[in-house]
Parts: sequence; structure tokens; C-alpha cells
Amino acid sequence: MKPANKNIHAVVMAGGAGTRFWPLSRESSPKQMLKIVGEDTMIRQTIKRLRGFVPDENISIVTSEKLKFDLGIHLEGLKKGKGRLKIITEPFGRNTAPAIGLAAVYLKKTKTDTIMIVLPADHSIRSEDIFIETLKTAIKCAEGNRLVTLGIKPSRPETGYGYIKKSSRLKSQNPKLQMYRVERFTEKPDAKTAQKYLKDSNYLWNSGIFVWKTSAILEEIKKYIPALYSGLLKIEKAIGTKDERKIIEEVYSELDAVSIDYAVLEKSKNVMVVPADIGWSDVGSWAALDEALPHDANGNIIKGNVIDVESRDSIVFSGGRLVATIGLKDMVVVDTADATLVCRKEKAQDVKKVVDELKKHGREEYLIHKTVERPWGAYTVLEVGDRYKIKRLFIKPGASLSLQIHRHRSEHWVVVSGTARVTKDREVYDVHPNESTYIPMSTKHRLENMGKVPLQIIEVQNGEYLGEDDIERLSDDYNR
Amino acid sequence: MKPANKNIHAVVMAGGAGTRFWPLSRESSPKQMLKIVGEDTMIRQTIKRLRGFVPDENISIVTSEKLKFDLGIHLEGLKKGKGRLKIITEPFGRNTAPAIGLAAVYLKKTKTDTIMIVLPADHSIRSEDIFIETLKTAIKCAEGNRLVTLGIKPSRPETGYGYIKKSSRLKSQNPKLQMYRVERFTEKPDAKTAQKYLKDSNYLWNSGIFVWKTSAILEEIKKYIPALYSGLLKIEKAIGTKDERKIIEEVYSELDAVSIDYAVLEKSKNVMVVPADIGWSDVGSWAALDEALPHDANGNIIKGNVIDVESRDSIVFSGGRLVATIGLKDMVVVDTADATLVCRKEKAQDVKKVVDELKKHGREEYLIHKTVERPWGAYTVLEVGDRYKIKRLFIKPGASLSLQIHRHRSEHWVVVSGTARVTKDREVYDVHPNESTYIPMSTKHRLENMGKVPLQIIEVQNGEYLGEDDIERLSDDYNR
Repeated sequence: MKPANKNIHAVVMAGGAGTRFWPLSRESSPKQMLKIVGEDTMIRQTIKRLRGFVPDENISIVTSEKLKFDLGIHLEGLKKGKGRLKIITEPFGRNTAPAIGLAAVYLKKTKTDTIMIVLPADHSIRSEDIFIETLKTAIKCAEGNRLVTLGIKPSRPETGYGYIKKSSRLKSQNPKLQMYRVERFTEKPDAKTAQKYLKDSNYLWNSGIFVWKTSAILEEIKKYIPALYSGLLKIEKAIGTKDERKIIEEVYSELDAVSIDYAVLEKSKNVMVVPADIGWSDVGSWAALDEALPHDANGNIIKGNVIDVESRDSIVFSGGRLVATIGLKDMVVVDTADATLVCRKEKAQDVKKVVDELKKHGREEYLIHKTVERPWGAYTVLEVGDRYKIKRLFIKPGASLSLQIHRHRSEHWVVVSGTARVTKDREVYDVHPNESTYIPMSTKHRLENMGKVPLQIIEVQNGEYLGEDDIERLSDDYNR
Repeated sequence: MKPANKNIHAVVMAGGAGTRFWPLSRESSPKQMLKIVGEDTMIRQTIKRLRGFVPDENISIVTSEKLKFDLGIHLEGLKKGKGRLKIITEPFGRNTAPAIGLAAVYLKKTKTDTIMIVLPADHSIRSEDIFIETLKTAIKCAEGNRLVTLGIKPSRPETGYGYIKKSSRLKSQNPKLQMYRVERFTEKPDAKTAQKYLKDSNYLWNSGIFVWKTSAILEEIKKYIPALYSGLLKIEKAIGTKDERKIIEEVYSELDAVSIDYAVLEKSKNVMVVPADIGWSDVGSWAALDEALPHDANGNIIKGNVIDVESRDSIVFSGGRLVATIGLKDMVVVDTADATLVCRKEKAQDVKKVVDELKKHGREEYLIHKTVERPWGAYTVLEVGDRYKIKRLFIKPGASLSLQIHRHRSEHWVVVSGTARVTKDREVYDVHPNESTYIPMSTKHRLENMGKVPLQIIEVQNGEYLGEDDIERLSDDYNR
């Protein structure tokens, strides 16, 4: 592997809520954190794809305050060598222009000027080598102070994307480099226009992958979104001071939500496009998996514990429970521990309506999965009843939960594998498989796995109030 | 309510496996034990429908050895007054002719001769008053030593049923009684023939509801199924002796599986039909619910925890988990704790293929539900892991589990509501909510609910082997 380029930075946009992949996506585990295409999650693949080209310490991830903690856990183990991924948090999402501006001023603060690659965290790219080669071309182009976007050659008359019409080719010392001026950006076309664009080699899909110098994009933001620019100046001054978070929040509360495409690229005279034949998909809905995953002989994509009888052209995902499908045609079925989606493929975008309904009623099936990753391992809610809740806890070897107190619940722990080191008030003792212990309400306690094998505990909570927020952390390895 | 008729007996045929209602039906809870149409389960409604007409002590239920125990629990609480339902068990199913013959000899043994109404346990009848009136007519007819079947006026060109062609009307003292000679039984017709039958008022559906004297049906069995008849004579002699079960098993192992329709009714010259306009449905598959249940404005039948967006003409059943359906058309979706079915309505019969597949691999999703009714209450399996199993036990007030020993597992019990009286070797003590206790392997123990409210316990089992058959019962209130 070639040494990575110290002067190139990557900004991964990971603020998306990804409601279109419900019930696999949840508020606390949106699309970018799902393993739907390929061997790892979308954001982890996005980061891995840059390995050897951009050093890990040059990768920043822009996400929301809300998601920061879960995303941090999710990305654990990705930090290789001395590299440490940076996480930049927005107080709340304001579309891509503010997110890109914020990342740019953070980069500007550390390096005077640098190349900045902007990547959505949740796109799929099959041809990774060609992708890196394309980025190199785009960087060459961006070094001339231009804003560069990667344009995808359309493979179907898609009406859901914006298109870019390229014009003349840019002259370059290297005749192999394909770089074009942009004639114009277009709105999402109707079906007839999309057919026309498909036949015209000048039209490309706007991929949302951009390359530019921090100075160049800030310059254009200054010109086309002056309110954002002046906010960014305030933030730049506050970075590293005790007021940093407060100022960012103040600035954000005044900002309009606006995309970089609409507010800058469509207006700027300085935009170039580099055609990218990289096997790209934005994986925009369950139905979009058709372009990102291989099919069986009947045109189906079937994963997990499924018995199928004569279905065709359908997508069936099961977690652990059994799903039996019979005679489906153009359907999507997705099963998780607490919710199942059954949807006609052409209606896959309407999953949003279900999510809106769940959101409105504050239902857990929108917020979290039954299994929740924590820095120390994971817990799974097995059952919630009247005045009791049952969880399975999985604690990694060497890991430790915080020293904590619950005011409204007591806990019975039965160890089913591994050995638990339990702190209970002043006592410290070990609990082995097939042994149990009891933590009364308002008792200081801590659970640790000092062993070499995972510790599994069944926890039965009793109490009037069993919310996750009944926790007072006295000491925590993970600084929560 | 009028006094019931002491000289009329009813035989409810409840041996069916009901695989066509998987995943709601399981081997241990087949269709007749499901609450799919109306306020109670099919078999309980079948029995309740006879109340005031046939005394409870005159109702017998024919079922399999396998199902007897679960069915007994299921029917608890139905026995009103001095009445006690009788359960007649077959060692294994041999279709309707042997089952009806067996019931007839049991009846013959207690009463010299009697009217016997034969009813499938799993049909739906909307017009209960008319049904009883129709039975009265059929009884009048059967008193003349005739075999009587109830014929349903076809409401659609059904190709899945056999038809009866009636001929001349029987003369009777009461001119209002509609009783007809049968010209012939017909095979399941093709679509064109079914259309013809629909227009011809002489064709009726064969309902599988029969009325005759025990002497009359045994006479015809003697004539048309002599092998069965001689077996029945052997059984008749053995009833009440210590060899009863052994002889029944011997006889059954020699019998052909054959239906009473095919083997007797189609051949006998002595069959009459009484037209029955009773809102009948045999509820033969999930798709058949369309005729038995009301629809919403979009033609859907939706039950349980479902969020639907613009589906039409679909059937969606959810247990507790959330099911979201979008844009379905003519689909069946059925969700249970451990399995989900998604099926095109016209393929509903193919559920059998899924069940065959599960059966072949001995999978639990075919055998039992996660919640299993017991005489003392119920248990729900919450999770099965490596060397552990978690159950929620629900024990009715006043009920008691057997005094038992497990050789391969220990049990931790956490009481979440009610009070548990625990016997553990020689100790007897109470465990209250938020308290726990531990039963080591090979320790004699018993769990009782002496209180007035239900007792709920979370049980965590530990051991190398966690099968339900690791139980040695030393004393049991339910004689198991």
C-alpha cells in the first residue's frame, strides 16, 4: 500500500437519519451504521475505502450531537496505528451547506489550506480502485482552486436524482485526465426528460461526492451564503475556547437548512465535474438494493432465516426470527426483533410515512433496537412488563460498566457465562456461571469482566420506573 | 333457554392438524384451538353453539392422543353445571370414517341407540338460531333411520368443495320441513362446472355436518366398510376393560384412512340432505377469512399492532410485535412471536409447503408457540442461549406445579408479581416480589400460588441440557 497523502483531508457526512431503511434503521442506528451492502457497515466501508490514500488522522466525520456517542462506539476498532478519526458534531442538522462549512473551518484552523474530499457516509461504491483514481483526477482539478464534483454516468432513466450537464473538457498537462466544465445543474427530471438524458452522454448524476480546497469552498460560501459565512467566522474564532459549543449552537440556531448543491454549486461559475465510473449507488431505499446487491435465479435478494416458496423479484431480510414468504412479486419484507415491514417495492419511499407515525407517538420501534451497543459490550431487552424488565448483558473481556446508582429499581443478576466482578457498596466479589446476586435500589454498584471470555448476565429489573435514564454515574471508563 | 335434549348427542371432530393456519396454528395448537373468527376459539364456539340444545354431558370430542392433553387444558372452564365434556382419543388420525365409527360405538355402549350429530370443530357458523332449527329438521329426518347431511347453498363458484345434488323432496307431516333425497355426490368441479352448479338450485355444498342414529351409521359402515366394522366390534367389547387402549391401537394400526363421505355417503342409498342457510364457512385457509370476517373500507382485515399505509384487500394479523404494511394488494401477513408469514392470497394453500419444510427439519416453529398453556397457567420462552433458557411463568391463583426434580438444570426464580410458595427439599417458604430463590440440580421442588392474584416469575435455567422432558414428577395435581 502506498503511503497516504498527508495533505489531503476527507470529511464524511454522517448526519443522516436514514428513516428510509426502517425497521433496520432506527434513530440511534441510522442507515450509515447498517450492514446492508457488503461486509461492513456503510460508514465503516466509506472510511476503509480511503485507507492508504487519506491517513486516518486526516478523516473527519460530521454528525449530530444526538448520534455522536453511538457513532463513536460504532467506529471503535477502526482507528489504526497513530490515526484517530475526528468527530465534528452539529447541534442539529441544517442540511449539507452548514455541515461542509463547519468542517472547512475546523480544517482551516489546523492547516492553513488543504484539499478536502466530501463524502456521504452511506453510499455504496463497487469499484474502489477506480474510485481512488477518480479522486486523484478530481484533486488535480481542485488544486487549481476549482470546486469539483464526481459525476456518475446514468444507467437508467432515474427521476429521483439531480443531473449535471457537462460542457467543454478542461485542458490539462496530462491528456488522460477527464475533467469538464459544468454547463448547468438540473432539477429532478420527468420520465421523458430522464430518457433523453440517458441517451445524451453530456448528462451525469450528481453523486454528492465533492473535492475542493477549504479556501475555495469558503470563498464561494462567502459569495453565495453570506449569513453562513459570517456564522462560520464566529465559530472559527471560538474553536478551542471554552465557548466553542455554545457559539456553534448559537450560530446554528440562526442558520437556514440548505444544501451545498442548491446554495453554492448551482450558482458558482467555478464548478467542474469528473466523470466517475465507480459502480456507485446512493442506496436510497430498500428498493435500491436491487442495484447494489446480487440476485438469485428468481431475481430475489434473500438474507437470513427465510423459507421462500416461489417468490420473484423480491427483497427479504430476516434478523433471527423465521420469515416464510410465498408467491411474492416485487415486494420488500424486513424483519427485526421488534418490528416487521411488508411493502410493495414501488412504495419503498413510503416507509417514511410509517416512521413519521411512530415518531408522532414516541414509539420505541422508531428510536432504538432491542439490542443496543455500548462501549463495554451490548445489552438486549428481552421483555418489558408491569414493574419489571429483563435484559441480557454482554460484557467484553476487560470491560467495565460505570460505577452507578439506580434510584427506582433493584436488579437481580444471574451469570450464564464468564465471571462477573461485582462491586456492591463496600463489598467486591466474583459471581460465577449459575450463581446470582442482588443489587438493591440506591446501592452503589459496578459490573466488570476481569476474565478472558465474554461475560453474559441475565438482569431482571424490578421497580416502579424502569427508564434507561434512571442512572447516576459516579465513575465511568468512557467519560459519559 | 329451553331444556336441552337428553336423547341427542353431539360428536365434535377435533383431530385436525390445521397446518393451513400456520404460523398461528402449531402442532400443539391447531386451527380448532385458535381464536380467528369470533370471540372465542373455533372448538369452544362449536361447543357453545349447542348450549341449550344438547346437554354438555352429551357432547363428545374426538381427537388424537397427541392433542388430548393440550385440548383438555384448552376446554377447561367450558364444563357448566353437572355436564362434563367427554374426550375420545384416537391413537392417530385415520380420516373421518374411523373417528365417526369410534364415537358411535362409545355412544352405543352407553345408550342403546341415540341421535348423533357430527360436527367439525373448526367451522364458522354465523346464524346460530337458524343452525339449531336446521338441526331439528335433520333430527326429524334422522329419526326415520336415515343418514342426513347439511347442505349449504353455494355463494360462489367454489372449485375446492364437493357438491351434493338433491332430488325429490321428502314428504313429511310438517310441510315446513325441507328434507330432500340425495341424487348424487360429486367430485370437486372445474371452474366451468362450478359456475353451472352455482346457477342450479339443486346443487349444495357438502358441509361435513351430519345427523343420524348410531345404529343407522353403524349399519351402513357394516355394509360399505366391513373391515372398519369388524374393528369397531372388537373395540366395543374392549371398552371399559383394561385392554381398551391396547385394542383401539391394534385396530387402528390396521385401518385405512378414509372419509365417511367417500366410503359411505356416496354409496349409501339412504342419504338425505337438509338445506342449511346458516352463514357457514369451513375457514379452510387464511384467504377464507374473507368470507368469515368483516372488512374495512379498503377491503382489508387488520388485527393487532399494525400500521398500514394504503393497502387493499389484504389480511394482516399481528400478535404483539409491530407490523407495518405499505401498498399491499391481495396479501396475507401473519405475525407471531417467533415466525412471520407473508403470502399472496391466492397462494394461501401453499402454507402447507412451509409447514412440511419445518416438519422435515424438526423445527420448533412448527411444533409449539413461545407461550404454552398449562393446567396451572402458562409459560413463555423468552430466550434460549448456550447453556441457559429464560422463561416467564404465569401461575393462576390457587394453582400449583407438580413436585418435581430436574437432573440436568438448576433454576433461578425472580418473583415479579404475586407471592410464590416454594418447596425446596424439606424447606417451605414464601418468595415475594423483587425477591429471588435458587433451586439446585436434582433438588425436589414445587411452586405454588397460594394468593389471590396471579404469580409471575422469571426463571433462568442453567445446565447442559434444557429440554422440557428433563422433569421427574413426584406428585401432580393434574395427574400427569
